[in-house]
Amino acid sequence: MRAAVFNEPRSIGIADRPDSVIAEPTDAVVRVVLSCVCGSDLWFYRGETPFPPGPIGHEFIGVVEETGAEVRNVAKGDLVIAPFAFSDGTCPHCRNGMTTACVAGGFYPLNGDGGQGEAVRVPLADGSLVTVPGAGHSDDMLASLLTLSDVMSTGHHAAVCAEVKGGDVVAVVGDGAVGLSGVLAARRLGADRIIVLSRHADRQKLAREFGATDIVEGRGEEATDAVMSLTDGVGADATLECVGTGQAMATALSIARPGSMVGYVGVPHGVELPIGEMFVRNKGVRGGAAPARAYIPELLGDVLDEQITPGRVFDFSTELDGIAEAYAAMDERRAIKSLVRVGSA
Amino acid sequence: MRAAVFNEPRSIGIADRPDSVIAEPTDAVVRVVLSCVCGSDLWFYRGETPFPPGPIGHEFIGVVEETGAEVRNVAKGDLVIAPFAFSDGTCPHCRNGMTTACVAGGFYPLNGDGGQGEAVRVPLADGSLVTVPGAGHSDDMLASLLTLSDVMSTGHHAAVCAEVKGGDVVAVVGDGAVGLSGVLAARRLGADRIIVLSRHADRQKLAREFGATDIVEGRGEEATDAVMSLTDGVGADATLECVGTGQAMATALSIARPGSMVGYVGVPHGVELPIGEMFVRNKGVRGGAAPARAYIPELLGDVLDEQITPGRVFDFSTELDGIAEAYAAMDERRAIKSLVRVGSA
Repeated sequence: MRAAVFNEPRSIGIADRPDSVIAEPTDAVVRVVLSCVCGSDLWFYRGETPFPPGPIGHEFIGVVEETGAEVRNVAKGDLVIAPFAFSDGTCPHCRNGMTTACVAGGFYPLNGDGGQGEAVRVPLADGSLVTVPGAGHSDDMLASLLTLSDVMSTGHHAAVCAEVKGGDVVAVVGDGAVGLSGVLAARRLGADRIIVLSRHADRQKLAREFGATDIVEGRGEEATDAVMSLTDGVGADATLECVGTGQAMATALSIARPGSMVGYVGVPHGVELPIGEMFVRNKGVRGGAAPARAYIPELLGDVLDEQITPGRVFDFSTELDGIAEAYAAMDERRAIKSLVRVGSA
Repeated sequence: MRAAVFNEPRSIGIADRPDSVIAEPTDAVVRVVLSCVCGSDLWFYRGETPFPPGPIGHEFIGVVEETGAEVRNVAKGDLVIAPFAFSDGTCPHCRNGMTTACVAGGFYPLNGDGGQGEAVRVPLADGSLVTVPGAGHSDDMLASLLTLSDVMSTGHHAAVCAEVKGGDVVAVVGDGAVGLSGVLAARRLGADRIIVLSRHADRQKLAREFGATDIVEGRGEEATDAVMSLTDGVGADATLECVGTGQAMATALSIARPGSMVGYVGVPHGVELPIGEMFVRNKGVRGGAAPARAYIPELLGDVLDEQITPGRVFDFSTELDGIAEAYAAMDERRAIKSLVRVGSA
């Protein structure tokens, strides 16, 4: 089969790879319909994080092609969402909703395949895959379903960790696809006012369409001052840190009101937490790799009902052959997020 | 009046100080009945934190002697609990329950008096002081009421920040008065199992009487291994860090289960938060100076009903003249916490 591979920084190609096959009785082989590029993929693309050459990608939806002897929850022909981590659904962490800490689980491409390819061997299929009800979904709907694999679930995780509740003033640091998903999640959880830190006109527009009420263009102290001014000196009731840099976290902590939480989901790069300041102002932090599998059942209904349309974060799309351009467009900030069309649903 | 003063590290004395008087119409003057020494007082006592010579102490209960013209909620003769920070009760942070961030508030001895003296000028008396109903309270009851000023409220804050809920396995790092109060708080919030890290037999005994079900004597990796073994490799559902050192925080984070919170209330000294590890395991931290004023109404009923008896953390007591010995006993770990009897209720 054909699949995207990482050769070296800034070199992504298509290679012939062994066909995905059932290796364990709990596996499923999924033929990929849609995949996409993650902001976290840019870390290895840019050479900022070591990564082994080989298959890449971890966000996909597809159709089940074959199942192992022990698989019961999904069947051949099912349209499924694959969360970016696989998990058994039965261990103490899965039962506690923390599927990314599954004792038997793992992350792609530890299974041997990446999500950016024609097919994927999905380990622990019963615990991992979520079947999408209905048929004949539109392209837009499929794109929104794809976001549940990672980006929308991650934005939701930021909002949950920040403890967004009805009536809140929410601040979102980051206007990438995760930050925009965080806006959707905050609105969905009842936020009254959503302040987004963004300097890009196209992202500001989508943020407003997703529910943002205020845009702050500055960075650093300027951004802090602007948010404090917008909140009468109080700060945000809940703050989402959706970047992962030291400056983003510092800004997030500075605009969080005393006693509130910063939910963070950007993989931390150069982040140092100022515990003394956090202590004095009772500001907490919580976040990490989103337990997407645990969130999908809750979010799926709202996607199918078009209460949320997270697929709109994709503003670039290509076939699998265009994978290198999908990365480059995001790297050069020409795209918020790149969709990769692989097969038909 | 006579009051304890800090001269220099390891030198605490009694000095003649100006009588406390009403300076603002929102002040009350409180004649101190009971005071005590805080674990945080040991930082300046030991010379580990700079502190100006002068009045000290911030935990006390007493009888209102005089009120300013604008004071409405307390009256002369009332027995009152003074939270360790004063706050107006009306600013956005106070209304949000975060009284230690009050925009008009502050900490003793910024008011000019410390809590370890014959009387205290309490600013913002209406927002700060809590009247104790009833009369003729026993010495034991008065000691328990005193703990609401700081230590019991602080233990409760750790438990709240750690999100202790019914049925939880809770781990408490630290067997000082705050850790022991955290045990009481965790039991009160419904914890099923409470694991306390303690190496002192007297503290272990009190911890068990307060609700601890398991004691772990090791430190560092040994403690982590023991807790992981007690929890079948899962870790604690909620973890209270009640020390404030780097090792205590590292241990707390290592025994917290994925997705759970560490509530921390020890003033951080040499603590560095390992954000990468926190991210990978979705472990959050939250804490700081407890909003005691916001918690007292909830805790007071349980103290008066003797559902909790936090005054038992005092295992040393003296008159005001013995204040130096009260500090020395805690410094040398001869006492868990020192009570200072100042006046009659």
